Amino acid sequence: MLKLDFHPAGRHFLNIPGPSPVPDRLLRAMSYPTIDHRGPEFGAMGLKILSGIQKIFKTTQPVVIYPASGTGAWEAALANTLSPGDHVLMFETGHFATLWKKMAESLGIKPEFIGLPGYEGWRNGVRADMIEARLRADTKHDIKAVCVVHNETSTGVTSNIAAVRKAINAAAHPALLLVDTISGLASADYRHDEWGVDVTVSGSQKGLMLPPGISFNAVSKKALEASKTAKLPRAFWGWNEIIEMNKTGYWPYTPNTNLLYALHEALDMILSEGLDNVFERHQRLGAACRTAVQAWGLEIQCADPEVYSPVLTGVVMPDGVDADVVRRLIYERFNMSLGAGLGKAKGKMFRIGHLGETSDLSLMASLAGAEMGLKLAGVKLAGSGVVAAMEYLESHAVPALKIPV
Amino acid sequence: MLKLDFHPAGRHFLNIPGPSPVPDRLLRAMSYPTIDHRGPEFGAMGLKILSGIQKIFKTTQPVVIYPASGTGAWEAALANTLSPGDHVLMFETGHFATLWKKMAESLGIKPEFIGLPGYEGWRNGVRADMIEARLRADTKHDIKAVCVVHNETSTGVTSNIAAVRKAINAAAHPALLLVDTISGLASADYRHDEWGVDVTVSGSQKGLMLPPGISFNAVSKKALEASKTAKLPRAFWGWNEIIEMNKTGYWPYTPNTNLLYALHEALDMILSEGLDNVFERHQRLGAACRTAVQAWGLEIQCADPEVYSPVLTGVVMPDGVDADVVRRLIYERFNMSLGAGLGKAKGKMFRIGHLGETSDLSLMASLAGAEMGLKLAGVKLAGSGVVAAMEYLESHAVPALKIPV
Amino acid sequence: MLKLDFHPAGRHFLNIPGPSPVPDRLLRAMSYPTIDHRGPEFGAMGLKILSGIQKIFKTTQPVVIYPASGTGAWEAALANTLSPGDHVLMFETGHFATLWKKMAESLGIKPEFIGLPGYEGWRNGVRADMIEARLRADTKHDIKAVCVVHNETSTGVTSNIAAVRKAINAAAHPALLLVDTISGLASADYRHDEWGVDVTVSGSQKGLMLPPGISFNAVSKKALEASKTAKLPRAFWGWNEIIEMNKTGYWPYTPNTNLLYALHEALDMILSEGLDNVFERHQRLGAACRTAVQAWGLEIQCADPEVYSPVLTGVVMPDGVDADVVRRLIYERFNMSLGAGLGKAKGKMFRIGHLGETSDLSLMASLAGAEMGLKLAGVKLAGSGVVAAMEYLESHAVPALKIPV
Amino acid sequence: MLKLDFHPAGRHFLNIPGPSPVPDRLLRAMSYPTIDHRGPEFGAMGLKILSGIQKIFKTTQPVVIYPASGTGAWEAALANTLSPGDHVLMFETGHFATLWKKMAESLGIKPEFIGLPGYEGWRNGVRADMIEARLRADTKHDIKAVCVVHNETSTGVTSNIAAVRKAINAAAHPALLLVDTISGLASADYRHDEWGVDVTVSGSQKGLMLPPGISFNAVSKKALEASKTAKLPRAFWGWNEIIEMNKTGYWPYTPNTNLLYALHEALDMILSEGLDNVFERHQRLGAACRTAVQAWGLEIQCADPEVYSPVLTGVVMPDGVDADVVRRLIYERFNMSLGAGLGKAKGKMFRIGHLGETSDLSLMASLAGAEMGLKLAGVKLAGSGVVAAMEYLESHAVPALKIPV
Repeated sequence: MLKLDFHPAGRHFLNIPGPSPVPDRLLRAMSYPTIDHRGPEFGAMGLKILSGIQKIFKTTQPVVIYPASGTGAWEAALANTLSPGDHVLMFETGHFATLWKKMAESLGIKPEFIGLPGYEGWRNGVRADMIEARLRADTKHDIKAVCVVHNETSTGVTSNIAAVRKAINAAAHPALLLVDTISGLASADYRHDEWGVDVTVSGSQKGLMLPPGISFNAVSKKALEASKTAKLPRAFWGWNEIIEMNKTGYWPYTPNTNLLYALHEALDMILSEGLDNVFERHQRLGAACRTAVQAWGLEIQCADPEVYSPVLTGVVMPDGVDADVVRRLIYERFNMSLGAGLGKAKGKMFRIGHLGETSDLSLMASLAGAEMGLKLAGVKLAGSGVVAAMEYLESHAVPALKIPV
Repeated sequence: MLKLDFHPAGRHFLNIPGPSPVPDRLLRAMSYPTIDHRGPEFGAMGLKILSGIQKIFKTTQPVVIYPASGTGAWEAALANTLSPGDHVLMFETGHFATLWKKMAESLGIKPEFIGLPGYEGWRNGVRADMIEARLRADTKHDIKAVCVVHNETSTGVTSNIAAVRKAINAAAHPALLLVDTISGLASADYRHDEWGVDVTVSGSQKGLMLPPGISFNAVSKKALEASKTAKLPRAFWGWNEIIEMNKTGYWPYTPNTNLLYALHEALDMILSEGLDNVFERHQRLGAACRTAVQAWGLEIQCADPEVYSPVLTGVVMPDGVDADVVRRLIYERFNMSLGAGLGKAKGKMFRIGHLGETSDLSLMASLAGAEMGLKLAGVKLAGSGVVAAMEYLESHAVPALKIPV
Repeated sequence: MLKLDFHPAGRHFLNIPGPSPVPDRLLRAMSYPTIDHRGPEFGAMGLKILSGIQKIFKTTQPVVIYPASGTGAWEAALANTLSPGDHVLMFETGHFATLWKKMAESLGIKPEFIGLPGYEGWRNGVRADMIEARLRADTKHDIKAVCVVHNETSTGVTSNIAAVRKAINAAAHPALLLVDTISGLASADYRHDEWGVDVTVSGSQKGLMLPPGISFNAVSKKALEASKTAKLPRAFWGWNEIIEMNKTGYWPYTPNTNLLYALHEALDMILSEGLDNVFERHQRLGAACRTAVQAWGLEIQCADPEVYSPVLTGVVMPDGVDADVVRRLIYERFNMSLGAGLGKAKGKMFRIGHLGETSDLSLMASLAGAEMGLKLAGVKLAGSGVVAAMEYLESHAVPALKIPV
Repeated sequence: MLKLDFHPAGRHFLNIPGPSPVPDRLLRAMSYPTIDHRGPEFGAMGLKILSGIQKIFKTTQPVVIYPASGTGAWEAALANTLSPGDHVLMFETGHFATLWKKMAESLGIKPEFIGLPGYEGWRNGVRADMIEARLRADTKHDIKAVCVVHNETSTGVTSNIAAVRKAINAAAHPALLLVDTISGLASADYRHDEWGVDVTVSGSQKGLMLPPGISFNAVSKKALEASKTAKLPRAFWGWNEIIEMNKTGYWPYTPNTNLLYALHEALDMILSEGLDNVFERHQRLGAACRTAVQAWGLEIQCADPEVYSPVLTGVVMPDGVDADVVRRLIYERFNMSLGAGLGKAKGKMFRIGHLGETSDLSLMASLAGAEMGLKLAGVKLAGSGVVAAMEYLESHAVPALKIPV
């Protein structure tokens, strides 16, 4: 029998930047008995979900839902729009941008990986000007797609997607714009239609607050058009049959019904709170978290205040401190998980997630755990980040909260 | 459809001194399908529970489990041992001692209510010397029972039960000793047999971490003997038939099966952690909480450091501050419930529960909520209680926690 | 770790006449985190529940909800209305009527127990004419209350409560009418106000489909008046303080919050289906079950077709067959629990519950289990009850079922 | 708020051949809070699951677990072992064999689809002799793989996989053997190693009793070798990185943690019951079901008694009866879902699932629903299948069941 659910130190604090803590209401929804995915109740639920998820992506175009975790939706975005040997332009913003590039290579695509020199790319967002310059140089239009990450989960840096769209337009380049906002969706402002994104990739286990296991492609007309001539083999990931079947609320193959129950509830929760209220809540919590880091006298991984992520904050360790040692201590002593530094950032920093259902008090618990852990690990702190965060939260009012009964 | 489970400010922080937050594992256990309370599985479970609960009371004598909330077990303790018109000695330690006295009156018993003068009784524990003096004066042995509260939930003061037993013995008085440890059990050290208690009253929704709905009488041989001549009418609360049926793991009338599932799990959790480890955990958390109150420059309701409660801490408001206004602000702004001042303490103080599953980080969240709320309510604080509590927790090591998988 | 939830023979079939199988929706509702029973959400929920439960009793008068199982509500009905030594008239219809009488004796009341001679009373309902005759003879109005069981859970016989009321009126006798419909409520037609009942006693684990742990007293004006002079000591069971506090949706002592969540949902389920539709559903299922028993060539415990219970059916064993041996075989071989014969009926019969959430197919499963078990136990059957029940269900249409999404 | 969980006709009977009814224990396991998939608890759980799942496949070789539903695992089997343009031999046994063939075409593989003429292939299993003949003719070894379905979910026909392996060996042909046992695993006997299968494809929502969302590839050494030269592009489905990471209990990308909780429990349930006991249980239930169909005078879809499926039974309708009309009536009147005829079988038959947690009594409920529905739909039945099935179950003893507490 699993005993994951008990720890002498009480309830676990899951503060990695995803999976985010799953609200009890979603866990309960997942426990509804599985129904026939070809029956009438399923179709009615399917239609409600498909309509709701469009609002989350701020799109009126199709959103394809995969019964697979996020990495699959990366593959889907590439496989539906590209052909073997195609050139794509990718921008190095961190570990996940790098993994997506590696995946493109595995699929036989030729990614060109540009970015700021050295470690700088891992502390800043996408530079739309560099993309524009590169596209202008591509007079033959060899580049079939521009692929960028909206919210780099490995660094806590967002990128200005509207600016990337402008850059592509300014270069009058026909490349598709593919964006990964796996960790950004439903926590950070995102606008699939307004920003002219062709394929948006996302997943369930971040702002949507579900466990992992569902992923998404929001798809523009231009992307659909591209899929007609794209030659990468695809079956499970193929958009057409799914979009066709979705018209009646069904899927061509078995969907993961119980996670869809949770998605149904999550959509109700988020749309009831109001998507823009959700964004504001995360901006405020992100600011409180950064205030704490600054009070500790530590550096924030994101070097550009314009693109601080409202989803997570990367905390840079002083020289000589192994971030993973600090994380381990915090895990063992305070029963709290923090995100590790990944790839080039390994050991240099840790990541505090403040996405999903995070609240003032759950953030304070996390910051207290981090502050105590840092001190116990021997890191010299300039002051109490906890106190600074409390001051921020006190002085930044929240809209009156109504308790629904 | 109930929407109790969602709030835009995230998961609710339940910091009243009971009901305490119910661990997920217990909520899950409660959702096992109800079984036949006369079937073989039930009997096997019943025997395990009856054996486990004795360990919690530190007794080898019978523990009667009622399918009723705690107030019922108060009545049971009186109804099984006393007759109409009997004199009992009760000691005023706070609101719950007062309510128990009122109940005795309702049942036709004659309680004598002694205590420290004025409000002092609400800030101190039972004075064993006063009890001894009163019993010595009762040369005719009119007093049939001494009734005291071990952990006053309304004040955060415990009482020295061993000292009360010594006082009774010193007076060579035959009175029964009835003790209410509804909120103390399984958070604060308690020893039914060693302390010579005749009836211990307790409930499910505090240290046992269950929802309300189950209550207990641990019963000494002397109490059982008394029940043979006690004349108060009783049926539902009668011990004899229950104790008889319990021998095979059953109850004479329908038990509340699903709460018993949770009790079964709670016993496993507590006894796995080790009852004395549980007590130590609460002592440490209580000390951290009081350190915070002192750093705020506020008074602790309990005036005697010898009997600080490890279950809850009463925080006295400065003159002119209505504690209920502060509580309301914290509830609305931070989605946290604190306990109100009750009876004579109404408006003068609030109560922070740190019982049950409380951990370092959940306590920090609660203290942060309280500190921010106090400041927003305009209460002048001497310093940051949150910082003080963190320092306490950092510098007071915990035994290495093992994660059971 | 409890393993109650797994059995190599699959999901358990709980076919005792209560606790009835708890619908998943109620189990999920019970797993909402416990909230502060003094907070604003609780009050709002309390008011909804108190209003809904009145509809179930068909009353506009107070319904008192106890955080205790059904036996407690029996005691409450007596303790609130009677004084030590009071005479009451009770009618022997079976085991539960007998237990209620025993309880009255324990409380110091003087019950007079009338009924049909020998075992006949256990196969028929209350005889209103006998009650009328006895009351007419009581010219001094010594009898303070008439206590009858509406649905005898031990026999599967209902009683005509309207007729009892008429009898009391015909005798122009001032006695109170106390009725136990613990197992009848929300499965069998019941009308507290129209039938002029003074106290109706009920519980949660039958037609309301909850686990055990909640019980009820519906209270008439006359009963409330009687409570002012009634002298039996009472505290936990006292109506007045509860009714007073209920005005704002709260209770004077800790209610069992998580079972109230389930009650909230159950009320929504039953009132959405329509209470009279619920009654019709049970009448139809009861008729199908009796058709099966008759096809087996076995006797139904209830000898009077006018008062067959829609809640359960008692199946009489042929001479020489021990019903408990049959039950045990069915339990072990088919993982199904049937109700035992109780008291005078022990070993002579078993009981099939068809209350609560029972449906056509769950009933067919139960009948199949019973039929196979009877045959394996060597009981000669006249024919297939399962076939007869299917024919009944096929030929008795149900209103078109709508699936709510 | 979803209301899927309530229906006036009670609990839904899900009798499609997958998803099968999910046991409550698995639903509860799925509701454990999501943990960090890079933390130590996760790794420990991962290792237990990976070891347990090997036992289910009866293999000591790697089993790759995908966070994706079953169709994905079909793609994985092909993409890891084949190159664009490769010839594969597939055998038409029904709808799912046909869909797998279509998928191969979508991926750029050249399937050759052999089988019995006309509709015969849909009523019989794979003919190993035809495969052997075809392979013998392939002297150049153009055929890279033989792909067959072990348990055709669309027909209720199993295939003799050991015979297919023998055929390949007899032809001394180097082709890989790929087998789909999505619906067979953990209900029907299956032996990955002993039968010399190179890739076995399966899913979670059938014999493993989970909701859909997890799928599997069990992989032989020879298949792993083939993957080194296979040229189909793959990333998400790639075996190597997963198998490498699995050594420590982790996955290279985010696994669907909460379904893995359920898998952990399902493995415990199945291995505790004993895998061969599980097979025996399904053989017995399948036989009872077919006995019913024969008593009705209806044809079983599977024409060859040697390969009746223990997972589901296809019931052929008499001429002029639309199976979907019967299914709809049963759904609306009895709240039971049956499987539709698919592809060539559309409208001609329906399918009764008896896989997963099915028990004697749940099967009887399903057969009663089917029998009543058939009669209400006007289908003339030769006799009562329900009676015949009961006789079968009575006369075929089961091993003594032990109730674990």
